[in-house]
Amino acid sequence: MTTPLFQPIGVVRTPFTDVVGMPIQPAYAEDARGVVEVVPAYQAGLRDLAGFERIWLIYVLHAANDAKLVVTPFRDTQPRGIFATRAPCRPNPIGLSCVRLLAVHATHLEIAEVDMLDNTPVLDIKPYVPVYDAFPGVRAGWFDAQAADRRRADARFT
Amino acid sequence: MTTPLFQPIGVVRTPFTDVVGMPIQPAYAEDARGVVEVVPAYQAGLRDLAGFERIWLIYVLHAANDAKLVVTPFRDTQPRGIFATRAPCRPNPIGLSCVRLLAVHATHLEIAEVDMLDNTPVLDIKPYVPVYDAFPGVRAGWFDAQAADRRRADARFT
Repeated sequence: MTTPLFQPIGVVRTPFTDVVGMPIQPAYAEDARGVVEVVPAYQAGLRDLAGFERIWLIYVLHAANDAKLVVTPFRDTQPRGIFATRAPCRPNPIGLSCVRLLAVHATHLEIAEVDMLDNTPVLDIKPYVPVYDAFPGVRAGWFDAQAADRRRADARFT
Repeated sequence: MTTPLFQPIGVVRTPFTDVVGMPIQPAYAEDARGVVEVVPAYQAGLRDLAGFERIWLIYVLHAANDAKLVVTPFRDTQPRGIFATRAPCRPNPIGLSCVRLLAVHATHLEIAEVDMLDNTPVLDIKPYVPVYDAFPGVRAGWFDAQAADRRRADARFT
């Protein structure tokens, strides 16, 4: 199988320098703002983004611990398979967050609802397209019956 | 910046051996079924996935051409910045698809609404969680006013 080497296209600047206390998902980070600083060579790729209300960031979970296959996630009290969670200590530590796009400048994006550490390396930016991405009301396994209501991270995965 | 090296956790087997004619998104691939074959070492990570109706696949767009910063996407007639499209010829050729999960077996997942080539290397599997991922009705820039209604790929990016 291929083992591709990716190069970050930029970094996210956020208010979070420590995992502990950081929102665990954009849905719990309404007030948190950040900036995606894109490598100037990729400036032309940001064209036409301004009309989108939300974007996907695909990024490196650069502070995550070594991978574990079974974890007790922030929002539960039971151990779960890593691929059934959004926990960071994954075989490939890749993060996925749907953030709100506030403004597009030449080589940086102002965003809100950020849930990542300061200086997080960004691998890709994609537009959020409801017809491709929005499935409200689908069944979500243990999330639907979750026992914990934790919305901020602790040190368990770092 | 870090340049992480990722190792595929498995491959997707699909009916599509040629990009031309392949659905460009899961939303246009209702009848297409596939199988995610996970490397046996990661079997424990699939635990608890069965309760989820949909999953995210993050994968390598392994047949994509060299990156372009401005492209005319399948669903438009105008050139757009690559990060405002889901086109495959991205600086980091990473794909993101929300597929329907039909069944979970020891080391493979039966899925529907597949829009990727046969033998696509998978980097990560995440559960689809509506509260994190579903934003119906948000503005989607040029998609909202798109001129083309193409739902199948042609050879423009490969």
